[in-house]
Amino acid sequence: MNHQESLTAYIAAFVTELVLTGVTDVVVSPGSRSTPMAMVMAEHSELNVHIHVDERSAAFFALGIAKVINRPVAILCTSGTAAANYFPAIVEARYSRVPLIVLTADRPHELREMGAPQAIDQIHLYGHHVKWFAEMALPEKSEEMIRYVRTVCARAAAIAAAQPSGPVHLNFPFREPLIPKLDNALFQLTERPKGYVKVHSGDLTIDNEKFKRIAEQLSGKEKGVIVCGNITDEHFAEAVTRLSKALNYPILADPLSQLRSGKHSFENIVESYDTFLRNEDARAFLKPDIVLRFGAMPISKALTIFLKENHTADQLVVDGGGSWRDPAALTTEMIFCNEANFCAELVTYLDSKAPSGYLDDWKKVNALTKGNMTPIRDLTELSEGKLFYQLADMLPEGATLFVGNSMPIRDLDSFFLNNNKSIKVMANRGANGIDGTVSTALGAALYSKSLYLVLGDLTFFHDLNGLIAAKLYDIKIHIILVNNNGGGIFSFLPQSEHPKNFELLFGTPLDIEFEHAVRMFNGQFIKINDWQHLELEMKESDGQSGIHVYEVVTKREKNRDEHRDFWRSVSQEISNFVKGGQ
Amino acid sequence: MNHQESLTAYIAAFVTELVLTGVTDVVVSPGSRSTPMAMVMAEHSELNVHIHVDERSAAFFALGIAKVINRPVAILCTSGTAAANYFPAIVEARYSRVPLIVLTADRPHELREMGAPQAIDQIHLYGHHVKWFAEMALPEKSEEMIRYVRTVCARAAAIAAAQPSGPVHLNFPFREPLIPKLDNALFQLTERPKGYVKVHSGDLTIDNEKFKRIAEQLSGKEKGVIVCGNITDEHFAEAVTRLSKALNYPILADPLSQLRSGKHSFENIVESYDTFLRNEDARAFLKPDIVLRFGAMPISKALTIFLKENHTADQLVVDGGGSWRDPAALTTEMIFCNEANFCAELVTYLDSKAPSGYLDDWKKVNALTKGNMTPIRDLTELSEGKLFYQLADMLPEGATLFVGNSMPIRDLDSFFLNNNKSIKVMANRGANGIDGTVSTALGAALYSKSLYLVLGDLTFFHDLNGLIAAKLYDIKIHIILVNNNGGGIFSFLPQSEHPKNFELLFGTPLDIEFEHAVRMFNGQFIKINDWQHLELEMKESDGQSGIHVYEVVTKREKNRDEHRDFWRSVSQEISNFVKGGQ
Repeated sequence: MNHQESLTAYIAAFVTELVLTGVTDVVVSPGSRSTPMAMVMAEHSELNVHIHVDERSAAFFALGIAKVINRPVAILCTSGTAAANYFPAIVEARYSRVPLIVLTADRPHELREMGAPQAIDQIHLYGHHVKWFAEMALPEKSEEMIRYVRTVCARAAAIAAAQPSGPVHLNFPFREPLIPKLDNALFQLTERPKGYVKVHSGDLTIDNEKFKRIAEQLSGKEKGVIVCGNITDEHFAEAVTRLSKALNYPILADPLSQLRSGKHSFENIVESYDTFLRNEDARAFLKPDIVLRFGAMPISKALTIFLKENHTADQLVVDGGGSWRDPAALTTEMIFCNEANFCAELVTYLDSKAPSGYLDDWKKVNALTKGNMTPIRDLTELSEGKLFYQLADMLPEGATLFVGNSMPIRDLDSFFLNNNKSIKVMANRGANGIDGTVSTALGAALYSKSLYLVLGDLTFFHDLNGLIAAKLYDIKIHIILVNNNGGGIFSFLPQSEHPKNFELLFGTPLDIEFEHAVRMFNGQFIKINDWQHLELEMKESDGQSGIHVYEVVTKREKNRDEHRDFWRSVSQEISNFVKGGQ
Repeated sequence: MNHQESLTAYIAAFVTELVLTGVTDVVVSPGSRSTPMAMVMAEHSELNVHIHVDERSAAFFALGIAKVINRPVAILCTSGTAAANYFPAIVEARYSRVPLIVLTADRPHELREMGAPQAIDQIHLYGHHVKWFAEMALPEKSEEMIRYVRTVCARAAAIAAAQPSGPVHLNFPFREPLIPKLDNALFQLTERPKGYVKVHSGDLTIDNEKFKRIAEQLSGKEKGVIVCGNITDEHFAEAVTRLSKALNYPILADPLSQLRSGKHSFENIVESYDTFLRNEDARAFLKPDIVLRFGAMPISKALTIFLKENHTADQLVVDGGGSWRDPAALTTEMIFCNEANFCAELVTYLDSKAPSGYLDDWKKVNALTKGNMTPIRDLTELSEGKLFYQLADMLPEGATLFVGNSMPIRDLDSFFLNNNKSIKVMANRGANGIDGTVSTALGAALYSKSLYLVLGDLTFFHDLNGLIAAKLYDIKIHIILVNNNGGGIFSFLPQSEHPKNFELLFGTPLDIEFEHAVRMFNGQFIKINDWQHLELEMKESDGQSGIHVYEVVTKREKNRDEHRDFWRSVSQEISNFVKGGQ
């Protein structure tokens, strides 16, 4: 059998099937061993091939694309440490449930663990962090092997996409010579030209008896709350707000629940709980008998403490991905069922209820808290909290807001309030790393109308390389760089009370002028003077292409003091209200 | 038992033992979960704590230190994707046999796989790529547990250092609160204050009978060659050159064998084989009956082909690490024995031999080849080949030369000729990646007199973040950036004959002005005009601290043509000589 023909037929069948499963985007890092796959992919007119030299950034870039298009994205690299550089994004993809198809080229078996160059052990390279690993057969063009490679392809894409979505890894051994034979018939399939095997992945659901029992359980409790963490299903907002009305329960909506922005009803949506649940009186006042929780654990530590304190309440957790999202081991009922379907179905079992005083209490405390955000709202100097407080106003309709981890995501939680713009809020909350944030945001920006990334200086630094994608593909991205010259979050942690090595180990100032980096990637760097300046610059550049970085310089200690002053003052108001109201 | 006391005593015992095993350097990436270990480490006066925000760079930086000091270096990071960022350097450490002690902080068991923030499955995170993994017990301060943690520490350091050296991974679960209790007695040990357990790792050796038999085997063959790949043992050069004299065999010395520079005898050292073994007549002329090989497989593809062609020759491979370094499956005798000891011992079994015509043939062809490097030597324009041809002359005595992968390492192999300066030559040749090169070189530079890094633009770009270490620690490094705006090596591969998507997939020009990046890290950027300029600038800045980047701009196609012209012309001379001489 001719080597080149086998190589070409096998890979072309794989790539054709990949496109037929619905894959539209692949991020390729240059390398030699991956040559046949890369060259065939570049020939396919329906495949968007994005090149990214740094594999770490490449994988995060793919993650960002997949987060937006909600379909598997493929990544391809050569053998060796190239593949190891994918690891951080793979781990993030696993925990944030994002479908990735990881394709690594490998030396053939006879060159493995024999001291050959650029040969590393790639079998199960990512361990438990992929949903499926397959060591592929060597390329052959027999009918059986073409069926095999097409089946594996369809299966890999289906496993990646099935709930909970995540990464899969196919390792391809390729022998030299590596050049495929490219011709016009490359993607013509003789057998089943519309796709070899279609996979129908079902949603998890529970039976009617269970729905009935849960409806009775909830109906019997007036003091109930719905907690929504990170959830990306577009149908969820409508379904859960209807359920909330039927139950008369407030919805405690994490910013990543997509419930703080949108066109759905905001009547029962409580969003400033991260502030008021820090207050002991509020927590006592609002004690629930039952908790119904959807999505990942919310960001708010105050909310987590509140849920822990109420461990005697019934706590129901619904997870369409069938994982175990219960870090405090509080759950009384774990319900593996698609979340939107669960809400829609449950409503049909519920009778209408009289308005509840308990729901009103939540709304009042929430309104009071928002009304008392003056210490943040009235800050005239640049401030991290206020940035998020006014961000919804400043963003254009239909924007995507991507938020870095550490301090920004927490400030988002505290200060990004309900608004009826269509703003999609994104973050890397699978493993909450600061790595790969720029690249993930850029991947998301590629298929978003207008993407704003807010992140700290260490997070920006960690993935500076990622900006190359914006330069090479002229991606439009707006980056609000909150530069407090170091790790701002540590000022809020007990570490800060031990000054001796604090700056060395935790503050870690880099003293970098990021303007240099931004210019290297042909971006616009704008050092923000004041709020008006930021607003003006954001307005002016919204439609413009390329990278815009707005640097907002803050001070770590001052930021901590601002937050503490705010929490102190609002806490007083909440206590007054709660004690007066009882 | 008081939590803070347990935490502190356990970690302090670990850190004390770590220093007692001889660890002097630890590279710490900031994070919260790793706080107790980081804070205790920072208190130890005998431990150099280096902070590096980007864990990928951090691990390579540690790798570079370990490569120079030849002792285990520790790295510490927090839980989550931080740890995944270590993976590329761990893989490189494994295959290049560099001792690393990887310390990852983790959530305690009750927070794992429960949807807790920043908790990922860290058990066996690096799979087969570490020599040992241990999931540590929770901190306790009982005598038993202090003995346990000290034993594990000593054992980890010993395993990392034992041949073949490599990475080990200890995963530490820490519960909150994370602040240790720091006092003056922190590192005082009640039991065995000089070290809990000393580990004596033996060297591999073979018995006298085997030595005798091998000596007889070699003595019976006049046509023998010694091949030396990457090897770092300082005693090896002396031992192998003596063996070569006793056997009358030429030494084919890879640039990483450390045999092309130094104060040892160069009499039998043949270093231009990568050029002349491309010539068929030379390969036929120099056919060996026996090959004795040490170290990793050499870089030269021409040499690999030569060894393959001579598969009927006896091929003896000596490996003190006991691995299998034989990608072409040619070995007739695999000898697991310390290389320097093997040479020294074997010499005692050999009688002196008459000078051999075969050895002379190798030397003549080698001399002829070097004498015919005029097409490279006489280039007036900046050129990649000529850079390495004259590099030994330009480097100061006692310099360390760190060379990037892809084209630079191959040009080093072809054009870096014998010289009696003391120049240490380094590269990341475990997995041959282009990642982490800047950081590894910086780690090496930290403990080197004068380090020169030569690398291409993609390699430089891949690890730009690494430069932060030079800025923060004012490390002196000289970087010769060979900027051919893309992946130069692909112009030499069959991919280059398929122009359609060549630039997209392989050429991958980034069109970056690196001056911006260098300035961001407070470095000096010098765009080199001509050879004189480079020589002058290198001389001038040799003693100066900080980052110096000398950008040598070349063109990929022109570079390929220069190489091909040279190989063509020298090949003609070699054929003439061989045919005339026969």
